[in-house]
Amino acid sequence: MKYRVCVLGATGLVGQRFVSLLARHPWFELEILTASKKYVGMKYGEVVNWVVDNSMPEDVGEIEISSVDPEVIAREKPDIAFSALPSDVAVEVEVELLKRGINVVSNASPMRMEPDVPLLNPEVNADHLELVKQQVRRGWRGILAKVPNCSTAILTLALKPIADEFGIKRVIVSTMQSVSGAGFRGVPSVAILDNVIPYIKGEENKVERETLKILGSVEEGKIRYADIGVTASCHRVMVLDGHLEAVFVETSKKTAVEEVKEVLREFRGNKIRGMNLPTAPSEPVVVKEEPDRPQPRLDRMAGRGMSVVVGRVREDKVLGGVKFVVLGHNTVRGAAGTAVLIAELITREGLI
Amino acid sequence: MKYRVCVLGATGLVGQRFVSLLARHPWFELEILTASKKYVGMKYGEVVNWVVDNSMPEDVGEIEISSVDPEVIAREKPDIAFSALPSDVAVEVEVELLKRGINVVSNASPMRMEPDVPLLNPEVNADHLELVKQQVRRGWRGILAKVPNCSTAILTLALKPIADEFGIKRVIVSTMQSVSGAGFRGVPSVAILDNVIPYIKGEENKVERETLKILGSVEEGKIRYADIGVTASCHRVMVLDGHLEAVFVETSKKTAVEEVKEVLREFRGNKIRGMNLPTAPSEPVVVKEEPDRPQPRLDRMAGRGMSVVVGRVREDKVLGGVKFVVLGHNTVRGAAGTAVLIAELITREGLI
Amino acid sequence: MKYRVCVLGATGLVGQRFVSLLARHPWFELEILTASKKYVGMKYGEVVNWVVDNSMPEDVGEIEISSVDPEVIAREKPDIAFSALPSDVAVEVEVELLKRGINVVSNASPMRMEPDVPLLNPEVNADHLELVKQQVRRGWRGILAKVPNCSTAILTLALKPIADEFGIKRVIVSTMQSVSGAGFRGVPSVAILDNVIPYIKGEENKVERETLKILGSVEEGKIRYADIGVTASCHRVMVLDGHLEAVFVETSKKTAVEEVKEVLREFRGNKIRGMNLPTAPSEPVVVKEEPDRPQPRLDRMAGRGMSVVVGRVREDKVLGGVKFVVLGHNTVRGAAGTAVLIAELITREGLI
Amino acid sequence: MKYRVCVLGATGLVGQRFVSLLARHPWFELEILTASKKYVGMKYGEVVNWVVDNSMPEDVGEIEISSVDPEVIAREKPDIAFSALPSDVAVEVEVELLKRGINVVSNASPMRMEPDVPLLNPEVNADHLELVKQQVRRGWRGILAKVPNCSTAILTLALKPIADEFGIKRVIVSTMQSVSGAGFRGVPSVAILDNVIPYIKGEENKVERETLKILGSVEEGKIRYADIGVTASCHRVMVLDGHLEAVFVETSKKTAVEEVKEVLREFRGNKIRGMNLPTAPSEPVVVKEEPDRPQPRLDRMAGRGMSVVVGRVREDKVLGGVKFVVLGHNTVRGAAGTAVLIAELITREGLI
Repeated sequence: MKYRVCVLGATGLVGQRFVSLLARHPWFELEILTASKKYVGMKYGEVVNWVVDNSMPEDVGEIEISSVDPEVIAREKPDIAFSALPSDVAVEVEVELLKRGINVVSNASPMRMEPDVPLLNPEVNADHLELVKQQVRRGWRGILAKVPNCSTAILTLALKPIADEFGIKRVIVSTMQSVSGAGFRGVPSVAILDNVIPYIKGEENKVERETLKILGSVEEGKIRYADIGVTASCHRVMVLDGHLEAVFVETSKKTAVEEVKEVLREFRGNKIRGMNLPTAPSEPVVVKEEPDRPQPRLDRMAGRGMSVVVGRVREDKVLGGVKFVVLGHNTVRGAAGTAVLIAELITREGLI
Repeated sequence: MKYRVCVLGATGLVGQRFVSLLARHPWFELEILTASKKYVGMKYGEVVNWVVDNSMPEDVGEIEISSVDPEVIAREKPDIAFSALPSDVAVEVEVELLKRGINVVSNASPMRMEPDVPLLNPEVNADHLELVKQQVRRGWRGILAKVPNCSTAILTLALKPIADEFGIKRVIVSTMQSVSGAGFRGVPSVAILDNVIPYIKGEENKVERETLKILGSVEEGKIRYADIGVTASCHRVMVLDGHLEAVFVETSKKTAVEEVKEVLREFRGNKIRGMNLPTAPSEPVVVKEEPDRPQPRLDRMAGRGMSVVVGRVREDKVLGGVKFVVLGHNTVRGAAGTAVLIAELITREGLI
Repeated sequence: MKYRVCVLGATGLVGQRFVSLLARHPWFELEILTASKKYVGMKYGEVVNWVVDNSMPEDVGEIEISSVDPEVIAREKPDIAFSALPSDVAVEVEVELLKRGINVVSNASPMRMEPDVPLLNPEVNADHLELVKQQVRRGWRGILAKVPNCSTAILTLALKPIADEFGIKRVIVSTMQSVSGAGFRGVPSVAILDNVIPYIKGEENKVERETLKILGSVEEGKIRYADIGVTASCHRVMVLDGHLEAVFVETSKKTAVEEVKEVLREFRGNKIRGMNLPTAPSEPVVVKEEPDRPQPRLDRMAGRGMSVVVGRVREDKVLGGVKFVVLGHNTVRGAAGTAVLIAELITREGLI
Repeated sequence: MKYRVCVLGATGLVGQRFVSLLARHPWFELEILTASKKYVGMKYGEVVNWVVDNSMPEDVGEIEISSVDPEVIAREKPDIAFSALPSDVAVEVEVELLKRGINVVSNASPMRMEPDVPLLNPEVNADHLELVKQQVRRGWRGILAKVPNCSTAILTLALKPIADEFGIKRVIVSTMQSVSGAGFRGVPSVAILDNVIPYIKGEENKVERETLKILGSVEEGKIRYADIGVTASCHRVMVLDGHLEAVFVETSKKTAVEEVKEVLREFRGNKIRGMNLPTAPSEPVVVKEEPDRPQPRLDRMAGRGMSVVVGRVREDKVLGGVKFVVLGHNTVRGAAGTAVLIAELITREGLI
């Protein structure tokens, strides 16, 4: 028996990735898709402007668009709702679903920093999932897990093995983010052609704060932020998919480049190792030796979009540590893929 | 009477910028243009594939291409030779010209770090010019000045006012560099379309070392490097012209964002202030207040390509200092424009 | 004394071109700028997201945004209103202004094919201006002239000299249009990156019909369409500015390539020749001999954006005629520039 | 037992597609790869700069690069050599291999129009293969088949069903071709960024002439060109893969749009229908109903890159016929994929 799942906001770029990942999922059955009010009752295949790489799974095109009204969704009793809703409407819908007993895995930014809401990047902090036990105090009958900001999900996967082995004091990161990160209409071509836009609203703050929560620990039911300084500068470049990040790390212990590469390559994720979650990549962190990799167009689909790719690991004498470049697929590893992986973790843990 | 000048390597992208800047220069008369052997004797207008923005100055198109043979050039006795030669041939040609009494302002990277060769970014370190006096020991009868690496020229112009006012301990910089920086055939479209290439051969080393020389001081005829740690990560993005750099600065004294903006805005260049050099921009550092500027396409021509544009100045609590974004035109401020400015400085100083 | 002018829809891409062209116009004084209701009362410089090449004329930034309400505008009694309004609101506003005695030169598509409204590309059909005399029957106290569709303005300028000299039977045209033609938010980067979109709503119909009106004649006060067959296929490519069109022409008389180039080069525009209109380019049609020109990035600013550039003129034996490529700047020659040229024609003709 | 095959010029973009298609081919065993002299003896995986979408098949990376010397290759006695050699060296190598009994399927342009060399687009003109019988007169012991020019392969696949059903008098075609068509270093990014280049050397001539041979018939051993007029205009756009073509067709019989779409959709290829060739797409011509398709990025991989995608079929009253847009993958359908399909046809026909 498969779990019955719902995608909230199924026509956007992240929504399409959800559909793509869930259409033939071994554990989940895609049953409910919501979109703008004007599309309710129409077929998904008629209203979606499908632009993610693979062609749209055919049977999904026949699904009738549902209303995003929590009352209506709850009547269908899905086991899990994946949320790709815009921030301004996400909270209300998600909370209403939680009250009605629907479990929610959400890509929307509000509530990511709440102390009883796990912000999960499964290979990094699957153990934070225990925070959900406290959510009952809110009167929720379902559980809520949040997916990190896209740049942060990619960054923390590369930082975790280093933090565990060498300790991290400070991280300085500059991102080069793809246009798909802003959604279909987010970046006009007139704005980005022959250009870089050195600003993404709210992004730096998310990277700087969410990283501390994800790399933090849960002790006696309380989240304890990692004691790391993170400073970020975020930029939009003319790339379709894939966020590239130049990362400088000051470590606690002395590092050697070859050792860093080794711990990155061997990283498998603490708690989820051995769980055989279907969406987990076999190598969460791929390390490249070529001098000019990773590159977004060539490497973003590593591990079917779920691996991050690290390259150019080199010693940083100025900071005392290492510098490297990391790439991840922003709508897969940075959004829908991580959400599906979280849902797999939740079901495997017997939480639903 | 104008000084008679020569451009070595006049058909490339930097060569074209030289031609564009020198064609109607008030002090310099463009008389000699060199290019590949196969073009010698043909007209410049017939062999150049003109791609820089403005249309080619018409009279220049009539100039006959000369051989790059130093013997041949020396016979014409130009006052100054501007070199846009590739690194592998630059040294030999430049040295032979110097021996024959031709002054050389060179954009080529070899010899930039020689102790008796000034590496000039005029607003920053015009006083380093005195090093040329020592060149006579090499048996040169002309003088040699070097233009910094493009990213470094842009970076040091933004760092200098901060270094003077607040002191700088460490600089972490990530660049997003345009394709014109690699020359006309440097970056194939197949390589860069929908992509970022996180590697530019030799670039990081140049930024890290040249910055120290430029921000250093000359004491008793000796160059003393600045005591700053600089670490860089360099990336190529799909932009035609304009290098954008995300800069994190750890300062010695406490800074306030508004003070930093003020010292940047008020910076005029120590020694060259008041010299009225024709190519010097009225504002070497333009500071933007809009949250999403500078942008390469919109800001690269500030000060006719000779100003750098700084934006997003914000406090950096992690490093103890500031972070900001700086943009400059790589083939103008980062190459030909700075070379012409150096030549203006040299002539104004009475060195030729 | 200058004519006092108004730009309706001054913040969009065409609106910005209007502002750029009118800010220092010798005959026109830019006094009124309208924009979205939410901006009324704010300064232009505060609300516009200036992206056209040159920096914004400073004094214009101080102009206070006016309401687009015709009543309000009419109170200011501008001599001419330039309209860059979206199609859906243009008709009503324009008609209300006309009733109130304001002359309108409009870039909006509605009413372009009305028999008493001249659709003007001044070098081609300035004589059609006489149609405005009939507009009094509509109860208008101002006069209305329409600017052609952008692709059509560019195309007809290249066709007119050929039609006059050789006669034209059929025209087959495929366009490669820039993203600025769709307005600032018109083409999302996610849609066009690494792509061509072979569809522009309504565009082919406009090219096929408007060409016949523009190349037609006015006889006894009646517009008589040209007896030409025009068939078009329109495509959007990733270019910022400049529409390129591949044109195949079946001519009535036999042509020779050199003759065609000559009539194109010598074309000056029948009626406006000698009028010295400030915005008229000295060469309306520039002909290139290089095998790979015109190119949008290199040639779109020919004649300050008001010339079209023709290249690759070659015999077409299959059709019996010629084929060539023509390029024009879509928001200058194809919109704001032609509108200003029309206004110059109208004032020179003493119609206002 | 599989046929043993060789790829001449295996490191270029077309060579990489060959490798990708042949690495796991059910009938062919990839044994020999040639590249520049400097790489001979090195492993393919070490020398290739792999940029085609899928990651490189691992075992292939271990193949040692061979010399392109026909003597050396012939010693290995491959059954088929696939040639992706540049035009200037192709003829000599190919002829020497043919003399030594190696069968050659070649993507290089020389000899395409020779009367005894079939220019094959298998679904269109598999029956032309009989021409190879005449090649013995040249003293060849192997057989030679040529792959059409990329734009022509795509075009003729869309024209054939129309020609068969309605007859074709004239074709006017404008292409928008991707940068990969010029090879890895063919189009510099500085040349094509924010630009279209309206010229591809020799391309229009190839489209105009090869189409007539491919759509022609073989009668009594002689190739008889189709009696069609074809005129082309070819343009390079900033797209990675996929040539888009705007096609206007004057037909002999009256057409209706729905009928044209039906014959395109139902087309299966005359002779190869039922042969079950592994690389043959199930639908050679995919017809789209959406108004804005086909688009290169979304549709180029239709039929694993072997289908062409037609859209926007509409009546053309001016010409008397139809106009439409067709897209195909230039290095698959337009090069390596068609070559492999030809080789499958040859082996199935028992010619080797």
